[in-house]
Amino acid sequence: MESLNNQLHRCSINTATLGHREPIALTLDRIARAGFGGVAPWRQEVEAAGAPAVARQLRALQLSVSGYCRSAYLTGATPAERRAAVESNRRALHDAAELDARCFVMVVGGVNGTAPASSAGAAPRDLAGARQQVADGIAELYDEARKLRVPLAIEPLHPMYAADRSVVNTIAQALALCESIAPDDPALLGVAIDVYHCWWDPLLSESIAAAGRARRILGYHVCDWLADTRDMLMDRGMMGDGVVDLAGFRRQIEEAGYDGMVEVEIFSRDRWWTVEPDSVLSTCAQRLQSVC
Amino acid sequence: MESLNNQLHRCSINTATLGHREPIALTLDRIARAGFGGVAPWRQEVEAAGAPAVARQLRALQLSVSGYCRSAYLTGATPAERRAAVESNRRALHDAAELDARCFVMVVGGVNGTAPASSAGAAPRDLAGARQQVADGIAELYDEARKLRVPLAIEPLHPMYAADRSVVNTIAQALALCESIAPDDPALLGVAIDVYHCWWDPLLSESIAAAGRARRILGYHVCDWLADTRDMLMDRGMMGDGVVDLAGFRRQIEEAGYDGMVEVEIFSRDRWWTVEPDSVLSTCAQRLQSVC
Repeated sequence: MESLNNQLHRCSINTATLGHREPIALTLDRIARAGFGGVAPWRQEVEAAGAPAVARQLRALQLSVSGYCRSAYLTGATPAERRAAVESNRRALHDAAELDARCFVMVVGGVNGTAPASSAGAAPRDLAGARQQVADGIAELYDEARKLRVPLAIEPLHPMYAADRSVVNTIAQALALCESIAPDDPALLGVAIDVYHCWWDPLLSESIAAAGRARRILGYHVCDWLADTRDMLMDRGMMGDGVVDLAGFRRQIEEAGYDGMVEVEIFSRDRWWTVEPDSVLSTCAQRLQSVC
Repeated sequence: MESLNNQLHRCSINTATLGHREPIALTLDRIARAGFGGVAPWRQEVEAAGAPAVARQLRALQLSVSGYCRSAYLTGATPAERRAAVESNRRALHDAAELDARCFVMVVGGVNGTAPASSAGAAPRDLAGARQQVADGIAELYDEARKLRVPLAIEPLHPMYAADRSVVNTIAQALALCESIAPDDPALLGVAIDVYHCWWDPLLSESIAAAGRARRILGYHVCDWLADTRDMLMDRGMMGDGVVDLAGFRRQIEEAGYDGMVEVEIFSRDRWWTVEPDSVLSTCAQRLQSVC
C-alpha cells in the first residue's frame, strides 16, 4: 500500500470537519490552500451559495468533489412524507451533477422516522418495514441517478443510529441493497465506507472484499473512534487519537480495488469545532500522511 | 406465542435494574414479593453478602438465578493481566455454582483493554488480536465451567462498546466462538441475547434461528432502545418506551426453542434509578405482561 505522504491530492475534506462555521467560499479556499485535492460539501451550504457558483469556484481551485452530503431520510410516516423526501433528493442530485460529485451520499433514515409526528405513543417499531421503505426510496431515486449519471453511495451507519438516522447498518446489508436494486450497474449504485461506522464489524474483511469484487466502493471516509467517546454524534476523533487501525483499514479498501479519495469527516463539537479552521486542516494533513 | 400475562414466574429481574442502591438481601425480598420467579445478581453484591447466605435466601424465596453477572474482561495488555482475569472468573464460577445459576454471563472486554496502562500513546488498535485473546480466555474458562457444570453465556454487546467493553458484537460472532471452542457441548457454552445489544442486526432472524438450532440460547434479556438515547451506557429504556418490537423479538427467540426466563436489565441512571425500587418492579411487571 502506498503511503499518503505527499499525496494530499488524493485526500478530501468533508466540510463537516470544520463545523460549518464559515461560508462555503471561504471553506473551499482554505481546503485548496492546505493542499487537499478534494472536498465533500453539504447541501445547506451549497444551496445557500447556489450550485453554479460553487461549481465555478471548485473548477478554479481544481478541487474535485469526493461526495455530496447527503440524502434526506427515506423513512417516513406517510406516503406523502416519503414522496417529499424522494423529491428533495432528486433536486439534490441535480446539484450533485452540477458539482460533478463522485457520488451522492445516502443516509437513509432511522426506524423512528416512520413514527407519525402527531400521534404520541404510537411507537415506530417496524424495523423491517422501515428497511423496505428505504429499499423502495433508493430504487425510485436510482432511476433519476441513471439519467443524471450521478452515482448513489449508500452509507451504512453505525448500529447506534438505527433508531434515529439509518436502518442500514453494515456494509453487507448496503451491498445486498445495491445488488437487488441495480444488479448490473455497479458504477451508479454502491457504498460509502466510513471507518467510524464499520470498524467493529466481525464481517468487515469479507464485506470489504465483496464490495470490491462487485466494484461498488464509491467512497472511503476516515476519522477515529475515541476509547472514551462521550457523545453518540458529536465526539468523533482525529485520525490517530482512537482505537481504529486506519492503515490496516485502508490496505483492505485498496486491495479490494478502491482507488478514489480518502475523505476526512469528523463531527467534534467540543474539540475540533472549537479549533481555528486552518489548524484543523493542517492536523488532518499531518495525520493523513502519518497514520492513515 | 404465549402471553406473559400471569407468567411472572417466567420473568427475572437483573438487579442492575434497581441501580444497586440497596443490599442484596433487601433487593431479593422486593423481587420475590413482586411475584417474579427469578433474579440475576451481580458479583459485587453477592460477594459482599457471601454466596452461601445469598443461596440460602434464594432457596427460601424460591427465586431461581437466570444469570450471574458477570465476567471480568478477558482482554488485557499482558499475559499476567489476562491470567488474573481468568482466575477472577474461576472464583466467580464457583459462586455461580453455589447459586445454581442458569449461566455465568460473559462480557468479554474491549479492544482498549489491550492497551498498556503505563504507555501513553500506545494505541490499542489490534481488534483481531483482542478477539483472539477473548477466544483463548473463554477456552480456558470453559474447562472449569465443565467441571462445575455452570454454563457460560457469551453476551454479544452493542457495537458501540467495541472499544471499551466487548469485542464480541453480534450473535453470529458469539455463536461462532461457541462452535469453535465447544463444538459438542451446547449446554455449557452458549449465548445470552439482549434486545438492547442486538435489535438492529440485519442478520438477527437468521442468527437467532441458528443459535436455537445449535441449542445455545442460554439467556434472554429485555429493556428498550430509546429513540432519543442520551448516554451510551446509562440510558436504556423501560420496555414499551422505545423502538424495539419486543413481542416480535420474543416470538423469534421462543420459536428457536428458548424456554428459559425473560430477564429485565435496565441501566438508567437519570430515570429508573431515581424511582423507588418497588415502583420500578411494578412497572417492569406491568410492561412484561403487556408489551413483551
